[in-house]
Amino acid sequence: MQKPLILVVNDDGINAPGIRKLISIMNEFGDVVVVAPDSPQSGKGHAITLESIIKCDKINIDDGPQEEYSCSGTPVDCVKLALNKILKRKPDLCVSGINHGSNSSINVIYSGTMSAAIEAALGGVPSIGFSLLDYSLEADFSESEKFIRKITKSVLDNGLPGGISLNVNIPKSVIGKKINGIKICRQAKAKWIEEFDKRQDPKNNTYYWLTGKFVNSDNGEDTDERALENHYVSVVPVQFDLTAYQEISKINNFI
Amino acid sequence: MQKPLILVVNDDGINAPGIRKLISIMNEFGDVVVVAPDSPQSGKGHAITLESIIKCDKINIDDGPQEEYSCSGTPVDCVKLALNKILKRKPDLCVSGINHGSNSSINVIYSGTMSAAIEAALGGVPSIGFSLLDYSLEADFSESEKFIRKITKSVLDNGLPGGISLNVNIPKSVIGKKINGIKICRQAKAKWIEEFDKRQDPKNNTYYWLTGKFVNSDNGEDTDERALENHYVSVVPVQFDLTAYQEISKINNFI
Repeated sequence: MQKPLILVVNDDGINAPGIRKLISIMNEFGDVVVVAPDSPQSGKGHAITLESIIKCDKINIDDGPQEEYSCSGTPVDCVKLALNKILKRKPDLCVSGINHGSNSSINVIYSGTMSAAIEAALGGVPSIGFSLLDYSLEADFSESEKFIRKITKSVLDNGLPGGISLNVNIPKSVIGKKINGIKICRQAKAKWIEEFDKRQDPKNNTYYWLTGKFVNSDNGEDTDERALENHYVSVVPVQFDLTAYQEISKINNFI
Repeated sequence: MQKPLILVVNDDGINAPGIRKLISIMNEFGDVVVVAPDSPQSGKGHAITLESIIKCDKINIDDGPQEEYSCSGTPVDCVKLALNKILKRKPDLCVSGINHGSNSSINVIYSGTMSAAIEAALGGVPSIGFSLLDYSLEADFSESEKFIRKITKSVLDNGLPGGISLNVNIPKSVIGKKINGIKICRQAKAKWIEEFDKRQDPKNNTYYWLTGKFVNSDNGEDTDERALENHYVSVVPVQFDLTAYQEISKINNFI
């Protein structure tokens, strides 16, 4: 039997510890091709490169059996290039991450990691984005591994409904506290309250740094934020149809 | 009575004819503040600027009464800056566009114009993205005007459900053919089939241009693509909750 073909992508860049860990896990499951950004692309959302060129070259980073390509484009560009130019056949799975930091709740729309997974789903490839709630480049991925293996195996065995990606967030490792399991959730209604840091450059021109505070006002028991608070892995099935079906008739009444 | 405060943004840049037209229409409805990118930002999706600084300076482009700011960031950065630093109170409406080119069906997720509108909705501001199905910078906006006025007035009078943006696409002007009206629609299940153009640079390195073909395989009568084909203005209510609720129980069965 042919081994599964697995595409690996991320937004932290091809050298980030998170993607190196994910590649090593995926090598257990099938033939792995990595197409990932050559530099960090956090917060790039679903951006694509329309006004400039994209470079994408084969590269050798470690001794693993995977084939790797380093790409100057966004995470979504990486997936488009992989599906349309690099891979010889449609992959059986696309995994994105392991992201250094949370992509739970509203973070999903800013996340290059999740946008790459969503782009794969758009291309008809079952996909999973994995994120660890730890921004550190020295993050401890050891507890994540068994959950990544379990979810990957389930998706390879069962597939996913068409057009669906899984947004998987994993609690940060805490000494003496075990992850309680996995919960399938909905996206919490949380958001960022921006706090732009206004500064003057040496020529006295104003500039800003985007900073902010994450605020969750959603008390639902079934949200990803609640699962993570309770030290569960959260899994949200995500779609790219943004239509608010429930509002169509209401809007028909006044436009 | 206080006049409505209207935030205007786009992704084609503050000098694009589409936003200039939109500003002139919005001046009829209220006090207008423009915060828009200083250069074209098409295809930027929901990207935000995390790794570099953002500049945003007051600028005077024409004699209109509006207040304007030109911003080095993405369309979503513009909205965040406007809501959190520039505007003295929460606006009554955010309009984005008029985009030069379609943002119907799947284009909504790549579009900086629509991502800006969605970001405003996230901030609790009713929002509308307007796009004309004509990429030309000399596009004829004259037929669009009355539909933009009608939809803007409806939203100012009635508001929108919380967290909802309207994705409004307007057919290209065709001599001798009038727009038939407005239809409230769902997002068509269409997608782009990429066709990367592979080239060699003068040093013989490979690079790519992203090109593609738009393919609509959705025959539904209620889609935005169908409305536009039939020469109607399409209006899709759009939300930022990406949860595929209908799949939660299915996924619970196998993970």
